[in-house]
Order: sequence, then structure tokens, then C-alpha cells
Amino acid sequence: MKRQIDAGMQLPDLVKGPVTQIDLVKYSGASGDFNPIHTVESFAKEVGLGGVIAHGMLTMAYVGQLLTDFAGNDADLIDFGVRFRAMVRPGDTITCKGIVTKVEPLERGLLAVIQVNAQTQSGDVAVKGNATLRFDQ
Amino acid sequence: MKRQIDAGMQLPDLVKGPVTQIDLVKYSGASGDFNPIHTVESFAKEVGLGGVIAHGMLTMAYVGQLLTDFAGNDADLIDFGVRFRAMVRPGDTITCKGIVTKVEPLERGLLAVIQVNAQTQSGDVAVKGNATLRFDQ
Repeated sequence: MKRQIDAGMQLPDLVKGPVTQIDLVKYSGASGDFNPIHTVESFAKEVGLGGVIAHGMLTMAYVGQLLTDFAGNDADLIDFGVRFRAMVRPGDTITCKGIVTKVEPLERGLLAVIQVNAQTQSGDVAVKGNATLRFDQ
Repeated sequence: MKRQIDAGMQLPDLVKGPVTQIDLVKYSGASGDFNPIHTVESFAKEVGLGGVIAHGMLTMAYVGQLLTDFAGNDADLIDFGVRFRAMVRPGDTITCKGIVTKVEPLERGLLAVIQVNAQTQSGDVAVKGNATLRFDQ
């Protein structure tokens, strides 16, 4: 069945969190990024961060889930890039949003360019970027 | 080549540490034990521990290394049990010790019962127990 994908279409928001310190412990192990700014409170305070901060890649992964949830079995994620902006801290709830900005037909299927971002409950944009899904129809 | 194993024989000490908070983050992921008393300083303080404490099983694993280092390719670890006593904290250096307390001949090879313990730099015994190695000679 062919899915209708149009420019201007909004993806269903994905809400993740609140982020816990244990999420950051788990993500350290999952990613292999053991920088103590993510898990050792006293270290993070000493270096002036005021406490531990989430791995940027964890927030990016939340946005990845927004995209793969939307893709389902109908599409592949073929390009995905973000810039990291505001820091995410334990206790933050992250809302991931996406909007289709461009649709290009292929011989078979289509490409959908999607502008994405993830915001904290305060409206701070933690990551922002673009992704491309290929719908193989 | 047959190795000579006698009651009274001491294993070479194994010194591990100082234990870091990142070691505990890593062990949480490796073990799947994400109890925050091991990684979240503020939580560990709130519950009256004064700070994070090492997983008992991590200290047991250090003793496991003492045993498997001693076994090398000549023996299998067939039994290993400890009791957990003093808490281990970040900054502690752990010395693992073992002494062969009994040797029993087998048809082929022998069993060596080994009393083991792990102590902090203050001499507090963190774990204490017994293990059996089967030397297959």
C-alpha cells in the first residue's frame, strides 16, 4: 500500500523522559562514551557544568526513534545529521518533532526530507537537523 | 608439565584499583545492575551511604581474576563463593589474596581448595570466601 507523504506533513511528536541519571549510565555503556561529565556529578560540578549532562548522541538517538517510528516498514533512513545546541540534564523531558520539507519522486518510491528537532520542556532546542527517508513504493 | 600445588601455597597477590566512579558506571553496564547506589552520588548520599559504593560482585570479580590468573591454562575454576563484608568505595585499592588450604588427588589431576579474600588499603576485608580449582594433569 502506498503511503501518502507530502511536504508540510508533521510527524507525530515523540516524547522521551524525564531523562534519569541511570539513563546516562546505561547510555555510557551502550555507546562506550564514558566521559565523566555524563555520569559523575562531582566531576561535572568541578568542571563548571553544574551537574551531569546527557550525551548529545542520546538526544540524537531519541530523534532517530522519531524517524524510524515514522518510517515503520515502509521506508529506510538514508541520511541524518543534527547540530547539538542546548544541554540536556537529568529531569528534562524531550519532545522530538519533525516536518516533511521536501518530497522528491524516485523511479520507484520517493525521498522525503524531514526537518527535525528535540526540545526540552523549557523550549530549549537541544538538537536540530535534517534527515532523509526513502519510501520504497 | 605437572605443576606442584601444595597446601599452604600462597597465590601471588592481585592488586586492583584505585576503583573509579567510571569503573562502577562500566560495571553497571557489564552486569546489568543499575542500582543507583553504585553510580548516582546524590542518591547514595540521600539513602545514607555517604556516596556511591562498588558492586560487591565487582570485588568478587577481582578475586575471580586472582583465581583464573593462578589457574592459567592448567586448571579450571569449579567452585567459588564469597561473603560480602566491608563496602568498597571509589578511591579504594583492592588487594586480592589466596592460600591453598587443601589438596585432594583425583584419578587424573587434583583439586585445590583456596581460601580467598579481598582487602582495601585500610585492611578492611571486602569479600572473603573459598574456591576450588581442578588441575587436570
